[in-house]
Amino acid sequence: MSAEIICVGTELLLGDIVNTNAQYLAQQLARLGIPHYYQTVVGDNRERLKQAIALAGDRAELLIFTGGLGPTPDDLTTETIAEFFNVPLVERLEILQDITEKFAKRRRQMTENNRKQALLPQGAQVLPNPSGTAPGLIWQPREGITLLTFPGVPSEMKRMWQETAVPYLIERGWGQQIIHSRVLKFWGIGESALASKISEFFDRTNPTVAPYAQTGTVRLRVSAKAASEEIAAGLIDPVAQQLQEIAGPDYFGADEETLTSVVGELLRDRGETVGVAESCTGGGLGAMLVDVPGSSDYFLGGIIAYHNEVKASVLGVSREILLQQGAVSEPTAKQMALGVKKQLGTDWSLSITGIAGPGGGSEHKPVGLVYIGLAAPDDTVDIFEYRFGAERDRATIRYISACHALDRLRRKLIS
Amino acid sequence: MSAEIICVGTELLLGDIVNTNAQYLAQQLARLGIPHYYQTVVGDNRERLKQAIALAGDRAELLIFTGGLGPTPDDLTTETIAEFFNVPLVERLEILQDITEKFAKRRRQMTENNRKQALLPQGAQVLPNPSGTAPGLIWQPREGITLLTFPGVPSEMKRMWQETAVPYLIERGWGQQIIHSRVLKFWGIGESALASKISEFFDRTNPTVAPYAQTGTVRLRVSAKAASEEIAAGLIDPVAQQLQEIAGPDYFGADEETLTSVVGELLRDRGETVGVAESCTGGGLGAMLVDVPGSSDYFLGGIIAYHNEVKASVLGVSREILLQQGAVSEPTAKQMALGVKKQLGTDWSLSITGIAGPGGGSEHKPVGLVYIGLAAPDDTVDIFEYRFGAERDRATIRYISACHALDRLRRKLIS
Repeated sequence: MSAEIICVGTELLLGDIVNTNAQYLAQQLARLGIPHYYQTVVGDNRERLKQAIALAGDRAELLIFTGGLGPTPDDLTTETIAEFFNVPLVERLEILQDITEKFAKRRRQMTENNRKQALLPQGAQVLPNPSGTAPGLIWQPREGITLLTFPGVPSEMKRMWQETAVPYLIERGWGQQIIHSRVLKFWGIGESALASKISEFFDRTNPTVAPYAQTGTVRLRVSAKAASEEIAAGLIDPVAQQLQEIAGPDYFGADEETLTSVVGELLRDRGETVGVAESCTGGGLGAMLVDVPGSSDYFLGGIIAYHNEVKASVLGVSREILLQQGAVSEPTAKQMALGVKKQLGTDWSLSITGIAGPGGGSEHKPVGLVYIGLAAPDDTVDIFEYRFGAERDRATIRYISACHALDRLRRKLIS
Repeated sequence: MSAEIICVGTELLLGDIVNTNAQYLAQQLARLGIPHYYQTVVGDNRERLKQAIALAGDRAELLIFTGGLGPTPDDLTTETIAEFFNVPLVERLEILQDITEKFAKRRRQMTENNRKQALLPQGAQVLPNPSGTAPGLIWQPREGITLLTFPGVPSEMKRMWQETAVPYLIERGWGQQIIHSRVLKFWGIGESALASKISEFFDRTNPTVAPYAQTGTVRLRVSAKAASEEIAAGLIDPVAQQLQEIAGPDYFGADEETLTSVVGELLRDRGETVGVAESCTGGGLGAMLVDVPGSSDYFLGGIIAYHNEVKASVLGVSREILLQQGAVSEPTAKQMALGVKKQLGTDWSLSITGIAGPGGGSEHKPVGLVYIGLAAPDDTVDIFEYRFGAERDRATIRYISACHALDRLRRKLIS
């Protein structure tokens, strides 16, 4: 028994949006232990959608659709599914009422095209959408095949999945064999260097170990199959332990843990606080720190000193240094870190100043040159110089700068 | 003649990463006017990858693969393609040399598993990878079918696409009919409200008009087919103009324009500056503002006042107000905006204070309650209250708060 994900929408084929829905559903299926081997993206086109249904229906027993449930004429999923299985659409009064109420509550005018969203194939069950107007369906058009449809709006889809689809699937015995995974995360080591260090682990079968890289963070997925999550976790534990020992401080966390959450935990345990002084990242490091609920326990705030005048007047960076050594320099990073620490009264502080590009680089100070300052409770400051290379784009340089800053604090806190 | 995108990687099926590569390639194909009707995601599995190749090879003439070119044993794309077309792999000396040099340059040790990346099917052309070690291939295994392979790392894939694949495709006459699109963007109006206002446009054929929504921003894609981009743009112009007029100030920009870039242009034109005071967004508004290259012309910086003590000591918010009315209140937002404006000496300032959740809400001040302050050059402050609802997640509340702040400044600047 396996599932397939079919994402419907010409906007996906045109690249207007990134398919986060497929990722979410994939994670959810993995968590439930429901195997899925293919994902298909198809446009708002009746014939091609039918072909996709035919193919997926041959390969899998559970077909999960996202997109194409909206009120506009190019939203074709429901009617195409009905057509494919040769079943008429009927208007559902309960859906119509729900839509009418939602519009009234939001004090918006319900439009005639919203009526279309009340049509479902005869025999299908409503998959309620508590946060939007487009409901989905749960339908077994014939023995051995179950269809679920969701709107394309990620927040609506997720809620519908959690509140209705998951209980439905579990009740019907989907996902009896558990695949349980743990993702180990590493910072400061490349994928192939890590892969060489741990190459003998790749031949294992239960758990399996597989690497994958994203910008900056290298990940190893350790996956076990077992009758229960507990048994699977027992298979994973010793292998994960060995991998962590081999990697040393380059290992920083697992699963939902991020550099930010790990640094946060370390600070919380010590009862210490941090502040940030940001130039090229413009607030991105602070925004990362507040990603974690409860970050107010240790993150007090910061100064975004994008303009040099702010570096001088608010952070107290010497105007002479700014003039002679420049805003992107070791002494500026040092004074920024000390400046914000003093202003905010934190135990620790991080500063970032660099050239994110695409302009502003020179021979001596190329795009990608970034200084990170880390001030400790005793006011000693460590400065780290990075040269990320002008071939990286502005967003990447800013993102990895913020990550490296967090990583430097992490290494200091565990040393 | 059409293309298909095949993304290879068990990490996609497990939901470990989001498929940004498919989006990028989709955009690029649309830009070149190369139609593509399906995208397939398949795991690191020889047999299923072969099935995907067989299917896509039946439907399309150009097959674009991403992923599975790395050095580890689960990277199977190249060898599976060779196997499918029954052609042997041969070691390419030029690739081996390139990999060796790259490792030397980065002062890293080349590992034995990297040798695998030098194998390509006999007769295939190397698709060079200037930034990574995994090259791709360009291959016509038989008449009427062309394969391109790219590594899964987005930055490497993009550069290879631009530098080698695009010139190759254009030279071979792919994309002679141009599909040119313009995306119109709206903030402050829902998708179905906008759709009702402009419903008569949906019946048009050249250009077509199609809506789609993402978090907050509503978009209309206006697409025309023509012999050249210029002719297509001529078909789009009058329709886009009409749509903008109907939408009024809810329309904010087109294509690459964002709320941030539009606000930036407005400020730059007036020679004015802005600063930010952020609580719940933690620097996210500042980070959005520096997304735009050249933002230093108008963005001076800001204060991240996450902790109340920072609101009082750095921004000068009255401790009495913080105590009596709370950090999430109209007067706090007002004093934050005025405080940062004074500290940084900007013409305008924006402040955000709110409850991003999941904790911290109460009956009177629920999760999702956000105040935005906008201080004008004459020190008058407009305050806007939003109730985004506790059903939205922390990241969404922070993101739309920052967008609404930018939108408020935008509306003020154009009024």
